[in-house]
Amino acid sequence: MCAPSVINAVRHSLSRRHFLTAVGGSVGATMVAPISGLAQTKPVRLAKGFRDVYDLTHTFSPKLPVFPAFKPMQIRQRFTIARDGFFANEVTFDEHTGTHLDAPVHFIANGGTADRIAVDRLIAPLAVVSIEARAAKDVDTMVTVDDLLAWEKRYGRLPAGAFVAMHSAWEARISNADRFLNRDAKGTMHAPGFSEAAARFLAQERDIVGAGVDTLSLDAAAAQKFVAHLALLGAGKYGVELLANLARVPSSGATIIVGGPKHEGASGGPVRVFAVA
Amino acid sequence: MCAPSVINAVRHSLSRRHFLTAVGGSVGATMVAPISGLAQTKPVRLAKGFRDVYDLTHTFSPKLPVFPAFKPMQIRQRFTIARDGFFANEVTFDEHTGTHLDAPVHFIANGGTADRIAVDRLIAPLAVVSIEARAAKDVDTMVTVDDLLAWEKRYGRLPAGAFVAMHSAWEARISNADRFLNRDAKGTMHAPGFSEAAARFLAQERDIVGAGVDTLSLDAAAAQKFVAHLALLGAGKYGVELLANLARVPSSGATIIVGGPKHEGASGGPVRVFAVA
Repeated sequence: MCAPSVINAVRHSLSRRHFLTAVGGSVGATMVAPISGLAQTKPVRLAKGFRDVYDLTHTFSPKLPVFPAFKPMQIRQRFTIARDGFFANEVTFDEHTGTHLDAPVHFIANGGTADRIAVDRLIAPLAVVSIEARAAKDVDTMVTVDDLLAWEKRYGRLPAGAFVAMHSAWEARISNADRFLNRDAKGTMHAPGFSEAAARFLAQERDIVGAGVDTLSLDAAAAQKFVAHLALLGAGKYGVELLANLARVPSSGATIIVGGPKHEGASGGPVRVFAVA
Repeated sequence: MCAPSVINAVRHSLSRRHFLTAVGGSVGATMVAPISGLAQTKPVRLAKGFRDVYDLTHTFSPKLPVFPAFKPMQIRQRFTIARDGFFANEVTFDEHTGTHLDAPVHFIANGGTADRIAVDRLIAPLAVVSIEARAAKDVDTMVTVDDLLAWEKRYGRLPAGAFVAMHSAWEARISNADRFLNRDAKGTMHAPGFSEAAARFLAQERDIVGAGVDTLSLDAAAAQKFVAHLALLGAGKYGVELLANLARVPSSGATIIVGGPKHEGASGGPVRVFAVA
């Protein structure tokens, strides 16, 4: 037995500065080696060896690879301390560049916009499904229903309201846009994504808030149609693309915090994404 | 006594979907009446009457008031589902518009940029210091050191790594830019902010990560110089301006999550800010 006051004390201690206490301090110790690229190289310890916060966001810059329909973001200095007393830039971007969110309306007429996603859907249990080993050999590989069932066999059924992220380790290519886009001789891009069946399974057979990838698209790059997008966004889920640092996050048990764009009528846009574990 | 397994079970249950358990379910019950404006009108319950997440972010739109040096943000539709198969906009903004972050480099030559703020400084204990009653009568009122000491007398010393927010209820004016800017006959703006002494006290006598306001500026609008900005940013702290929904957040015990901008070399920029309690 446990006195309620003790449980409350535990809860209280978790609810303040150090509310992000997770299952223990082992996360930092089990990290994989850093990946090259723009992202942070190790998680930051929030407290004394206890809790970690991971930054799942790439630094947003004109150097990041972009999906071919879009142009790289732009930063233009408008004010300087010497001249104006303060320094400030103007920023211009196409919504679907950088680590960014896809709202349903991106593909679905009259679908929900990013600014109106309920905030409780932006903080969610994070399930990381790794297809890294296959992706190293097959650039067209996809997350399958079997991959999702294998995750569940190991970690238990996907929690209600989960966010499911594909980890393909594509991030290792991010400093080289040509390698990231990975076009063949005919100009067709090749990179992993969710299969249509897996996207439908998540949208229909499980209770998720959204899905994410460490590539530029929820769909495999060589897919003829946006089948994974349509399955997920069509079911009112949101997507997050170009996630960083998934190699370092626990496959199960972390919580994702999606600082989604809130400009009016957004089809999506750059996000700041954290995971805490 | 309490068996370790029970504490671990509590921790575990908190570490997943419902990791945001706070001190209890009383927050929602003690909310004040909604304020008019663009922000959400009530906090969302994350779980069964237990935990709340607050959106401290105004919807970012051309209609929001801006500090006079800056232009309103712009949203331009570039792709439509009918023509292109998907809908997407281009967005342009001056960094210091909307609910936004000020990095040290905004005012301090060679100061830190927003993209490099350590992520553990973007999740912090939130202290809300209300000067609402005074601000209703005196549009030039400021947060004083006495206000901070009064907060501490009631709630205890500001926690290490805290984020301190001024709540002046200026948000009630947000749907009317003229009322928000509040210029007098000579064109001087009037709105509350931090006094220089309070900003110095926070920067030097306490261990904070940053400070925020529900107005357009850390400084009172009629201040002749950016004294609060300089005291805070000069000490390496960050600011967040145009915060929403502070009336609804507990004065002590909540945690702020600042989804800060991560574009390269940012002097600041629009943020998505949550509080959890």
